[in-house]
Amino acid sequence: MEPTAVPQALALIDYFGIAVFAISGALLAAERRQTFVTFVFFAVVTGVGGGTLRDLLIGAPVFWVHKNATLLICIGAALLTWLVSRRFIAERALLWFDAAGLAAYATYGAAKALSFGVAPVPAFVMGVLTACAGGIIRDVLAGEPSILMRPELYVTAAALSSGLFVGLALLGLSLPVAGGVAAIAGFTLRGLAIARGWSLPAYND
Amino acid sequence: MEPTAVPQALALIDYFGIAVFAISGALLAAERRQTFVTFVFFAVVTGVGGGTLRDLLIGAPVFWVHKNATLLICIGAALLTWLVSRRFIAERALLWFDAAGLAAYATYGAAKALSFGVAPVPAFVMGVLTACAGGIIRDVLAGEPSILMRPELYVTAAALSSGLFVGLALLGLSLPVAGGVAAIAGFTLRGLAIARGWSLPAYND
Amino acid sequence: MEPTAVPQALALIDYFGIAVFAISGALLAAERRQTFVTFVFFAVVTGVGGGTLRDLLIGAPVFWVHKNATLLICIGAALLTWLVSRRFIAERALLWFDAAGLAAYATYGAAKALSFGVAPVPAFVMGVLTACAGGIIRDVLAGEPSILMRPELYVTAAALSSGLFVGLALLGLSLPVAGGVAAIAGFTLRGLAIARGWSLPAYND
Repeated sequence: MEPTAVPQALALIDYFGIAVFAISGALLAAERRQTFVTFVFFAVVTGVGGGTLRDLLIGAPVFWVHKNATLLICIGAALLTWLVSRRFIAERALLWFDAAGLAAYATYGAAKALSFGVAPVPAFVMGVLTACAGGIIRDVLAGEPSILMRPELYVTAAALSSGLFVGLALLGLSLPVAGGVAAIAGFTLRGLAIARGWSLPAYND
Repeated sequence: MEPTAVPQALALIDYFGIAVFAISGALLAAERRQTFVTFVFFAVVTGVGGGTLRDLLIGAPVFWVHKNATLLICIGAALLTWLVSRRFIAERALLWFDAAGLAAYATYGAAKALSFGVAPVPAFVMGVLTACAGGIIRDVLAGEPSILMRPELYVTAAALSSGLFVGLALLGLSLPVAGGVAAIAGFTLRGLAIARGWSLPAYND
Repeated sequence: MEPTAVPQALALIDYFGIAVFAISGALLAAERRQTFVTFVFFAVVTGVGGGTLRDLLIGAPVFWVHKNATLLICIGAALLTWLVSRRFIAERALLWFDAAGLAAYATYGAAKALSFGVAPVPAFVMGVLTACAGGIIRDVLAGEPSILMRPELYVTAAALSSGLFVGLALLGLSLPVAGGVAAIAGFTLRGLAIARGWSLPAYND
């Protein structure tokens, strides 16, 4: 149960994912014409929500509690979104950054869970939660229909990255290779959903 | 604070409660004509949500993180609900299974809390949370009016099971007897609410 | 990381904040004409929600789990609200008690986080969460627009108390002095918002 070292490169991905998700939270506050305090609140909740839930569930110390950097990134993202007029933040570009953050975060979440001795199926779920829970909490707090309820391939792309990583790691691939393959696969699937509007079939009884 | 062994029979109840609650989560996804990924998400959240909150609060390792079985039950419940047309899952039968899961889960949750050295009043609350929090999270995620806000005896039946168990255990009854009495009482109360539409009086100033 | 003793006086503030927040939760249940069970549920969630989230995040044992008093205060607040007709609970008076609870809780939350070795920026966030998360969870469960989304100085007053406390403590002031200054400043700001309708500017691109 002793955590093994998560590769440093994977850890850096964390900051990237946090910044992208924090901006998406602040943008929702901008859309609703909220105050700066609410910008920060949504940036923080969306930026660290998924990883926080993961850490609580696997019994790890919550990753942003013993350093200042993570929250400062979220506050910076809120400030940036507040200062730069919303019209200048290209929605299209953000979609693609979010896709990269999603794939990277799902892979990283599964890797951290495995490194804490979590069983394979829960580790897969941790990857999905890490990538999606921040956005889900953001939507619930804002009273928006959740990303969960949209048929587009969002949670599914996270599940692909997370599941592939766990599967390849179980097969014995080196973690950087497994992580690279998993992140690229999830990003590609999400990218196809953005570019071509791919979605899952809905239930129909 | 060292957990004493929770009787094995009580632990088995866990799987039953999880399966019933997971199906109720997947059925909500079916009603909303969601995708299979959303079926799984709702099955997992509803199936393990209450017990997860309990374990986090009492400082126990989260029960589904170090084994695969629990989540596989939830995923299986989602698959079953997806494959079997919704029309063939009798709503009435599910209501009764849910009543059994509610009473069993409330009793089990209180027992687990006591076994971790939790004080009586919080142990009572843990039983109620274990039984009800999954359904509450499901409703919040789906944007439904929560089971909390309905006057029917739902949370109350969980409170009866949980409170009876804690009370009888404090009086020194053997745990299996206390558990049996508590679960049957909660199930009976919930059953009367289903069969005769019993409800609590609403506030009226 | 070993917690240093939080001054006893600060700990007493905890009970005051819990009672005020619990009443505000029960009042929401009264407004919606709910049952007594729902009164208790909202009183508990609103009363202990913020501190619970703080304790989970900083890795402290959840403060109400190993004693009965905290939950009994919440249940008592629900009973009081149920018995005393809502018309006799002066909304205006409650607003001012809530302002006191907010400032006290934000200060106490930041102090507890620092005493657990949390870094300054996260400790500041813990103060805000301790003061505001209970109300946010209450609003989400009831399907209300969250206090987060209102422009009035609510979260901001909590941020002032929490931020001042962390700043003054870092500057080396004795904790009781820092706590007193911080709580009074937050209460004053929130009071001005109540008395004069002060609010933050909304985003406008």
